[in-house]
Amino acid sequence: MRSLYLILKQLRILEKFPVPGFSSPIASYCQASKAGPVWGSRKYKNRQGIALDVMDPEIEAQLAPLRQAVKEQGNVIRQLKEDKAPDIDIQRAVAELKHRKNALETKEFELSPKDDFDRGKLEDLLKQRFFYDQSFAIYGGVNGLYDFGPMGCAVKSNLLQFWRSFFILEEQMLEVDTAMLTPEAVLKASGHVDRFQDYMVKDLKNGECFRVDHLIEAHLEKMLTDKKVSDDVKAEIRDIMPKIDGMSKEDFRVTLRKYDMKSPMTGNELTDPIEFNLMFATSIGPTGTLKGYLRPETAQGIFVNFKRLLEFNQGKLPFAGAQIGNSFRNEISPRSGLLRVREFTMAEIEHFCDPNNKDHPKFANVANVEVSLYSGCNQMDGKPPEKWTIGDAVKQKLINNETLGYFMGRIFQFMTKGGVDPKKFRFRQHLSNEMAHYACDCWDAECKTSYGWIECVGCADRSCYDLTQHTKSTGVRLVAEKTLPEPKVMDVVECLAQKGLIGKVFKKDAKVVSDYLSNLTPEEVDKLEKTLQEKGEFEITLNGTSFTIKPDMVQIKRYQKKVHVEEYTPSVIEPSFGIGRIMYCIFEHNFQVREGDEQRTYLTLPAIIAPYKCSVLPLSNNKDFEPFVHQLSQGLLKLDISHRVDGSSGSIGRRYARTDQIAIPYGITVDFDTLKAPHTATLRERDSMKQIRAPVEELPELVRDLAQMRRTWQSVLNNYPLFEQQETTKGN
Amino acid sequence: MRSLYLILKQLRILEKFPVPGFSSPIASYCQASKAGPVWGSRKYKNRQGIALDVMDPEIEAQLAPLRQAVKEQGNVIRQLKEDKAPDIDIQRAVAELKHRKNALETKEFELSPKDDFDRGKLEDLLKQRFFYDQSFAIYGGVNGLYDFGPMGCAVKSNLLQFWRSFFILEEQMLEVDTAMLTPEAVLKASGHVDRFQDYMVKDLKNGECFRVDHLIEAHLEKMLTDKKVSDDVKAEIRDIMPKIDGMSKEDFRVTLRKYDMKSPMTGNELTDPIEFNLMFATSIGPTGTLKGYLRPETAQGIFVNFKRLLEFNQGKLPFAGAQIGNSFRNEISPRSGLLRVREFTMAEIEHFCDPNNKDHPKFANVANVEVSLYSGCNQMDGKPPEKWTIGDAVKQKLINNETLGYFMGRIFQFMTKGGVDPKKFRFRQHLSNEMAHYACDCWDAECKTSYGWIECVGCADRSCYDLTQHTKSTGVRLVAEKTLPEPKVMDVVECLAQKGLIGKVFKKDAKVVSDYLSNLTPEEVDKLEKTLQEKGEFEITLNGTSFTIKPDMVQIKRYQKKVHVEEYTPSVIEPSFGIGRIMYCIFEHNFQVREGDEQRTYLTLPAIIAPYKCSVLPLSNNKDFEPFVHQLSQGLLKLDISHRVDGSSGSIGRRYARTDQIAIPYGITVDFDTLKAPHTATLRERDSMKQIRAPVEELPELVRDLAQMRRTWQSVLNNYPLFEQQETTKGN
Repeated sequence: MRSLYLILKQLRILEKFPVPGFSSPIASYCQASKAGPVWGSRKYKNRQGIALDVMDPEIEAQLAPLRQAVKEQGNVIRQLKEDKAPDIDIQRAVAELKHRKNALETKEFELSPKDDFDRGKLEDLLKQRFFYDQSFAIYGGVNGLYDFGPMGCAVKSNLLQFWRSFFILEEQMLEVDTAMLTPEAVLKASGHVDRFQDYMVKDLKNGECFRVDHLIEAHLEKMLTDKKVSDDVKAEIRDIMPKIDGMSKEDFRVTLRKYDMKSPMTGNELTDPIEFNLMFATSIGPTGTLKGYLRPETAQGIFVNFKRLLEFNQGKLPFAGAQIGNSFRNEISPRSGLLRVREFTMAEIEHFCDPNNKDHPKFANVANVEVSLYSGCNQMDGKPPEKWTIGDAVKQKLINNETLGYFMGRIFQFMTKGGVDPKKFRFRQHLSNEMAHYACDCWDAECKTSYGWIECVGCADRSCYDLTQHTKSTGVRLVAEKTLPEPKVMDVVECLAQKGLIGKVFKKDAKVVSDYLSNLTPEEVDKLEKTLQEKGEFEITLNGTSFTIKPDMVQIKRYQKKVHVEEYTPSVIEPSFGIGRIMYCIFEHNFQVREGDEQRTYLTLPAIIAPYKCSVLPLSNNKDFEPFVHQLSQGLLKLDISHRVDGSSGSIGRRYARTDQIAIPYGITVDFDTLKAPHTATLRERDSMKQIRAPVEELPELVRDLAQMRRTWQSVLNNYPLFEQQETTKGN
Repeated sequence: MRSLYLILKQLRILEKFPVPGFSSPIASYCQASKAGPVWGSRKYKNRQGIALDVMDPEIEAQLAPLRQAVKEQGNVIRQLKEDKAPDIDIQRAVAELKHRKNALETKEFELSPKDDFDRGKLEDLLKQRFFYDQSFAIYGGVNGLYDFGPMGCAVKSNLLQFWRSFFILEEQMLEVDTAMLTPEAVLKASGHVDRFQDYMVKDLKNGECFRVDHLIEAHLEKMLTDKKVSDDVKAEIRDIMPKIDGMSKEDFRVTLRKYDMKSPMTGNELTDPIEFNLMFATSIGPTGTLKGYLRPETAQGIFVNFKRLLEFNQGKLPFAGAQIGNSFRNEISPRSGLLRVREFTMAEIEHFCDPNNKDHPKFANVANVEVSLYSGCNQMDGKPPEKWTIGDAVKQKLINNETLGYFMGRIFQFMTKGGVDPKKFRFRQHLSNEMAHYACDCWDAECKTSYGWIECVGCADRSCYDLTQHTKSTGVRLVAEKTLPEPKVMDVVECLAQKGLIGKVFKKDAKVVSDYLSNLTPEEVDKLEKTLQEKGEFEITLNGTSFTIKPDMVQIKRYQKKVHVEEYTPSVIEPSFGIGRIMYCIFEHNFQVREGDEQRTYLTLPAIIAPYKCSVLPLSNNKDFEPFVHQLSQGLLKLDISHRVDGSSGSIGRRYARTDQIAIPYGITVDFDTLKAPHTATLRERDSMKQIRAPVEELPELVRDLAQMRRTWQSVLNNYPLFEQQETTKGN
């Protein structure tokens, strides 16, 4: 299961930048709980947390030593923290913990009961019916790029439409659609230019590139199984392996050279490690001077528009911005199909709220939603995930706040309505060393697939990091106002930019300069005033350009003011959805083979996601069927129900099998009885393969109600006569 | 109106590469018509063509000399062609024609009756209510990039959803969603790498860039108005100006130097003209060896998937592929707001059909649609556009074929249903020198705006150019098959690739090599066989890599076969929609000011496009209104009707004005009468401002029927009591 381990490590597309830092509330929570009797006690667990999988005692026996190893290391870390040990020691201990945790999870995954899912068969189906396939295949293909065909495209568009209605419409979010081309300054502020990178090495002869951590890991694992390697060296390697994740560029270099690693493909020498930024660079405009990147996430487009969105929302908080769109990451070696790609669709929400009040008005709606939570504590204790209601988890401070919990509940509802199997779904909390330093809590929605547990949605409380960063870079204050319980009298120092003169001197940059001056803090105004008095000028640097401010460009005013409002930088809660990954998980969770017929594969996608809602099949190409096919097709079109008429030859059974493959949930067949008055046709449901007969004129509305989940198939079965002939009769 | 002229020239985003060429059917049609009495005769015109605008005789008098000038030049060209004059002479004459035509159109536009549209006011509204705005404004903004805010985003998403249902669903098109990152080889084949370029010059000191044709034109126009310039020089300039469009790099250089042109901004020296490819370049993967571009159009993603789509369609033609997505063009100096941008959304259709049969089965549905056609002939004759039915235009061969005509009819219907004013809509035919050399006919759907006539949709018959090009580059035959009327006996030469051996030798390239070998033409197989016999090996080059084929890698078979089918390369009809431009035109055509109140601007967007379909307004913040507001909101949500609750303070009149600004077509107000049983509320229509009263429980469905255009407002007025109080009463 080595590959699983690698993939678990590899799949972090939705993560922001993990920066070591140990001050997060999770860590404190874990520490607190250690002392008290509540957390981790059997009694507590019975009341509120139920272990996800009731494990076979035999399996548990095999896992016990691994669980113990994790727990011991968890305790080591807690002790180190209590002792206020140096950060570097804690980091090392955390790396070791992570390694033990991975070993445990890999074993768990290995021992967990397997369904007889056959990935090869699913891939055949997806390729053959053109759900998606590698891009530019006729040109030899490009790794990490995929094209969605008609079926994949319809699923994607349905999933996005569902997302839009489930989140944006339901929550009255403010959707934006912003540029993918992004100037460097924006991504410098967000941290992507400096920190969004992996290390790689190149084959010195053919230039082939490898991610250095993957290469080192694979090399060391190979050495561990090599009989010629001495036990001493193996012990050394076992000591190094857990540390790979936290290695610096120099650590990588030393390790590479120490074990004399070569290209695994050619045996050629390798370069030293090179930082490789994962963003695609380009140049905006013809001069070549405005460096830009393709955005690595859609979130920044919301942050830079915060002021306009706040205005649009009439200055009121909380509100959420949302965006659906493509992002780009130049992965060094993409693999695992849709799970790790270079161009992908995201759907992101940035919910802005008061940092001192993260309650959510609709929290009650999700408080009883039961989800499987794999907390940081459980990860440190070697325990499996537990079932919690969102309400309890927030009450117990396991989930940091109501808004975060609200979104987690909504994410669970969205995913399972969209077709994810709830038994293969969990939220995994970031350990403090995984989490960005500014985040206060972060949970990944993960789905279990044949590749292991895959992160599909990230849900993070990013505090006020992003808005603060853009404020720093631009001088534009990205803040909100709240009404004070009582008005305050304040000393005001104001810097009035003399726009006429500034316009004349700085031309196109005048607005930036004026904005900057108008937004100075009182301390900054004092400094400006002093410098102007002393030196007669004041230098400022904005977006990399210097501007000299002269005394006549500003007018400084001081007075007292009664203020009723207070400014603050909002916190951001960010649910971030990887659409391609979600689609892949839905495909895996809904892939089926008909009993007794290995060849008859099909997809049980929910109607809301299925590419077409209904098929219309004439039993044969008898001309008399045509007017009824036309009537049904027009009826469905009028109700905006996507459908496919399949008048091709082939037995009705074969055609059903084909529509099952593309997940069409309902099929109407026009047969010889249709021709007689009263005109009726059959309606078949994909999963049960049961059929009923209903009047032709009722069928379009019936299908609409079923497809929009306003009516259940069971109620249809109860109200219409069952039909049992067609599928078994020989092809017509 | 100089700026208009420039803009008309500038706006060619949707054009493919105009390559001079004079063999198109339009030209022949125009020539034929010249001889006969039908074309251009009064009688003919009365029967089938009606001049678009019945012009004021005074205006016509002013236009007459310009019309005459165009016509004379049109005749010159016809004569040159008849005399088989050298291409270069014809090109010059066409450039002159174009200049005269532009002069005529500019004058026509100038003299045409103006509505009192105020662009500044529209722009204020669009910015203030955050329909869209420049991207990264807090960073000083980037030219040519725009962000859509909540309102623009909703309009865009509604327009795209409408497009999807109008074209894809209705016509059962095969939608794809393909990669934006595109390797160079693909765009080399399509012609974009070599020909998708403009010429620019740079300021030698500060590096500022200018499009050389714009710069020369502006400079020469300035000279024409300069009193110090002699009449001789002015005459010379007048001779040069019409030729700017057709100038080569060297012509540009000579002209620049001859008149000693400098940077218009700084007066600095300029470089020689430089070719500037309009695609954004980047590098795919970490090695830096795979050069890529951001796609300049979505079409290529459909062409490279042709084979899979044909398979998906069970080998049958005709069928259409479609794609909605972003494309990128690195404009040298973008301007005119949404009309000329660097990143934009397109919706493209590629309809593949038999080149010998371009009839369309649903042509009858659009045959009676009346559109304004500005034919190549009329352009050459200095005549205005004429009204035609699509049926007549195809019958008279003015439009090349039924499929092209069908799409033009559908485009007209889509645009006008979406909110384009039919009186400000026309199809302009490409003149032969504008059209790509491979195209057989091309019409641009243009909308009249304050910027002049703007190309919004291109509709071209691209013949089999694209598929042929990709076949040439990849060796993969992008062809379809059709059944022969009678089977033929043919000699078959077949090259069977020995996949086992090829796999061993060429590894990851094995498939490409096998495919190539299996797809050789009989002549190629002969050559291969001969070379293998003589030299013992055969060299092939695929995607830039060489492969040596040895005799044991292939088995060559010869036999006779009865064939029932024939292969051919399909033709492509391509309707290509510029979504941002269409949106802008819809905004202009629907911008209104309330009579008697200059400040009260609003947008009369059709319900299908409007960001929200309905507003729900409590008359005041009286708590008793809340349950009714909630009930209405939930009712609308259940029917998937997007709506906005505005419970803010402010008089009801002010709130109506605000919802009118964001084009909400219907508004429900909960007032004191709502509190009494039977509970009723008012419903207001945006354009007429009329209101009715209806029971609260009926309102959601009523709004749904109105919004989905299943019911007219008139029928609502007829069935419910008029309500006449609210809007006039003072704010509550």
